[in-house]
Amino acid sequence: MNGSLTAADIAAAIGGEVRGDGRRAVVRIAALERADDGSVSFLAQPRLRPLLASTAAGTVILRESDADALVARGRTAIVVDDPYRAYAALTRWWVARERPVGASGVHPSAYVAPGVRLGAHVCIGPFAVVESGAVLGAHVHVGAHAVVGERVQLGEGAVVHARATLGRGCRVGARAVLHSGCVIGADGFGFAPHEGRWEKIEQLGAVWMGDDVEIGANTCVDRGALDDTVIEDGVKLDNLIQIAHNVHIGAHTAMAGCVGVAGSARIGRHCTFGGAAMILGHLEIGDHVHISAASVVMSSITKPGQYSGVFPIDENGNWEKNAATLRQLHQLRHRLRALEKKSST
Amino acid sequence: MNGSLTAADIAAAIGGEVRGDGRRAVVRIAALERADDGSVSFLAQPRLRPLLASTAAGTVILRESDADALVARGRTAIVVDDPYRAYAALTRWWVARERPVGASGVHPSAYVAPGVRLGAHVCIGPFAVVESGAVLGAHVHVGAHAVVGERVQLGEGAVVHARATLGRGCRVGARAVLHSGCVIGADGFGFAPHEGRWEKIEQLGAVWMGDDVEIGANTCVDRGALDDTVIEDGVKLDNLIQIAHNVHIGAHTAMAGCVGVAGSARIGRHCTFGGAAMILGHLEIGDHVHISAASVVMSSITKPGQYSGVFPIDENGNWEKNAATLRQLHQLRHRLRALEKKSST
Amino acid sequence: MNGSLTAADIAAAIGGEVRGDGRRAVVRIAALERADDGSVSFLAQPRLRPLLASTAAGTVILRESDADALVARGRTAIVVDDPYRAYAALTRWWVARERPVGASGVHPSAYVAPGVRLGAHVCIGPFAVVESGAVLGAHVHVGAHAVVGERVQLGEGAVVHARATLGRGCRVGARAVLHSGCVIGADGFGFAPHEGRWEKIEQLGAVWMGDDVEIGANTCVDRGALDDTVIEDGVKLDNLIQIAHNVHIGAHTAMAGCVGVAGSARIGRHCTFGGAAMILGHLEIGDHVHISAASVVMSSITKPGQYSGVFPIDENGNWEKNAATLRQLHQLRHRLRALEKKSST
Repeated sequence: MNGSLTAADIAAAIGGEVRGDGRRAVVRIAALERADDGSVSFLAQPRLRPLLASTAAGTVILRESDADALVARGRTAIVVDDPYRAYAALTRWWVARERPVGASGVHPSAYVAPGVRLGAHVCIGPFAVVESGAVLGAHVHVGAHAVVGERVQLGEGAVVHARATLGRGCRVGARAVLHSGCVIGADGFGFAPHEGRWEKIEQLGAVWMGDDVEIGANTCVDRGALDDTVIEDGVKLDNLIQIAHNVHIGAHTAMAGCVGVAGSARIGRHCTFGGAAMILGHLEIGDHVHISAASVVMSSITKPGQYSGVFPIDENGNWEKNAATLRQLHQLRHRLRALEKKSST
Repeated sequence: MNGSLTAADIAAAIGGEVRGDGRRAVVRIAALERADDGSVSFLAQPRLRPLLASTAAGTVILRESDADALVARGRTAIVVDDPYRAYAALTRWWVARERPVGASGVHPSAYVAPGVRLGAHVCIGPFAVVESGAVLGAHVHVGAHAVVGERVQLGEGAVVHARATLGRGCRVGARAVLHSGCVIGADGFGFAPHEGRWEKIEQLGAVWMGDDVEIGANTCVDRGALDDTVIEDGVKLDNLIQIAHNVHIGAHTAMAGCVGVAGSARIGRHCTFGGAAMILGHLEIGDHVHISAASVVMSSITKPGQYSGVFPIDENGNWEKNAATLRQLHQLRHRLRALEKKSST
Repeated sequence: MNGSLTAADIAAAIGGEVRGDGRRAVVRIAALERADDGSVSFLAQPRLRPLLASTAAGTVILRESDADALVARGRTAIVVDDPYRAYAALTRWWVARERPVGASGVHPSAYVAPGVRLGAHVCIGPFAVVESGAVLGAHVHVGAHAVVGERVQLGEGAVVHARATLGRGCRVGARAVLHSGCVIGADGFGFAPHEGRWEKIEQLGAVWMGDDVEIGANTCVDRGALDDTVIEDGVKLDNLIQIAHNVHIGAHTAMAGCVGVAGSARIGRHCTFGGAAMILGHLEIGDHVHISAASVVMSSITKPGQYSGVFPIDENGNWEKNAATLRQLHQLRHRLRALEKKSST
């Protein structure tokens, strides 16, 4: 960290307007409930508005309509159109200030194969491996123990965190963030059955990712069987997600942790998937489809909207009774129909 | 790649018979819909037969009965009994041709403990670790950053991809393929409860795998508590699968991504498990049992067949109503029974 | 291993009392069904009592009430209050004896940044990375390829297995066990939506773990957005678990494999979660709550007890019929109500 900050500095950084004392010192970012006088906080959700009356935060990022109440309490307001977005921008500015980009260069313990092309200001960490034919754009960061396979391409500013792995021939766009332990370009799961055994289908495609993609820790994106698995611009995948071969994910779609997408599924743009949602193979999901956590998509969905399918949790005794009855649901329906017939005669 | 290929070369490689011009050049493998004149494609599923009339593929692997229609269009057919299997064989031949086995040898940056036994033509990549007492068969490939623990045994031709990890004492058969990030032989999850705390049970077994096993990226197979966790010949596990301690998986069973198998479950041969299926502990699944994706096996299944248990996904509003009603299903049944009684009197 | 063991040695190690011949040789630990004369086994579950009449085990750890029957068969009993706990203690004693702590020291291939503070008897394996500002307590073990990030703190006796990763600023208590491939302190999944795109929220918190925590292979615990993600003392997490940012897990709670916990969920003490259970974000689970495998917690639970919510698996044909009917369950209820009305008039 370099130098002390004021509310006015924060406002300038995020393009907001100060109300109250702009000279107030800011030393940390904190949630409204846990803030103190040296904190800058933010109010994004209307339901949290009552906290404005009690928060100890010295400085709060908020909408115009909330400013007066805060300033009347002797605090400093920073007025913006979208406080949550402004908070996001603040975190990025904060990190850039706190952790200025390290000296570029290749750590002496790293292994970079002969002939690899490294852009300007590339940084490669201890024991990283960059194999032959790889091309790294300017400002690419490769963390400790990361493995960048043969002929991999990494766009400008991509960050490959410690221990992420990219297999042969995968291409990643600009500003991608690949978290630790993710595996991009392992073989898709392809076997031909023959007399009760499985015969390997070598996976000849690779993985193609657009710009601004983020891939979570220990997430896997498999290479395609013949063509590439495709992750379009701006897609965000959380941790421990499985993307099978030949999947196509449209731009700006986001998936929470533990999601699984089976082979050749084609997913639209601007979709969201709750944690542990599962999407079966070879089906199509249109744009702006939202799947709730733990729901299983078993056929194509073209109409935008929110979709769910989760067995409601209950006290174990109740669940047991209801689950047992569920196995006879079809018969119950028949019995109901029989009664209806009888009753209508 | 070395030299140009013709349809006749492909036919010879996969044991098929040429119909039409065997001298046609082949430069890639492609799906029927995305093929061009230089592509070899294949027709395996009868429902795709109409594509034969429109595909631009110069060469197609297909069954006898489909050959004439293709040849009449001036294309080259390669006739085989099982086109999907022939395609699988072609991919393997293609990869062997494109990527001839690299020079064997130990990368100078790798750490191989004194006394390790290395078979002929073993290849060990950058920063790989092979600990004391390990025994590697001929043609074993250990990728960058892979960790082969103490006294691990790797059968002839086994491939340990970059960053796969094998714990102490695990034994792997011939031709195994272990993908990046998989962890074979971490401790099983064993604790004795005592006064509200958990006391560690050290896991004294290991993992034993037969021949021709494939383990996906970031998949975990835990070591046994006292005996070994066992994965028989030809088992194929996709990515991000959890196999707990003392599980036994019979030969040629296959599991798609995100499956979980709890401790001491015993699974038969020739079973298949769809993605994210969950198998509870200490139960038994017979041979030729097929579990649908996302289904939960809560008791033993001995009868072969297909089993499913997934809440059907629906528009969120409908789901909410049905899920709420489901919590009263048992009462609904009682009410139905009451009506039936009344109506029969 | 050093020297041969007798039943009396085992009894002394676990604080039990010998009945029968204490000089009987013990060479392995085995389950009752697979034991032989040189085995020490244990009887913990009353339902396994019949095995006492047939087991070949030479020595068995059991309760007072079971001793006579065994000794009458000419075997040796070791009497304890809690045989399962005694078995756990035995495994720990066994491992300490079999694998005495290796020589401490830093492997010459490891990278330890200048200024790192290493306690007494620290052991650091091949290619491990310990970044600047890290503080390692006495007897800490860092395995091959493990990455200990900047300013990480590891308590006395913590074991970081091969290829585990700890991100910048994370703090881990004494005697923690972090298994291979786990990622502690990757970024939480935080983005602000803006005009159909996702804007990164940098994650400024870290991960804080108490003493005696165990984290399974390839499990992820994300860093907090502003405050820390917290894992209290004695928590045990199995493999492939996802813990999102700002989650708080109370002391001595245990989770089986493949569980997912979404952001800011607050989980009590002494809870258990079956495999693949999913907990949605921002909700609260009280102490002593037990969630069955594969169940989805969608709202807060404060009352102790066992909770379940799983669609019962069935033969596929039955499942299809019941699942289809389930989508009309709400209408069925209406029809039933209509019939009831009619019948009561």
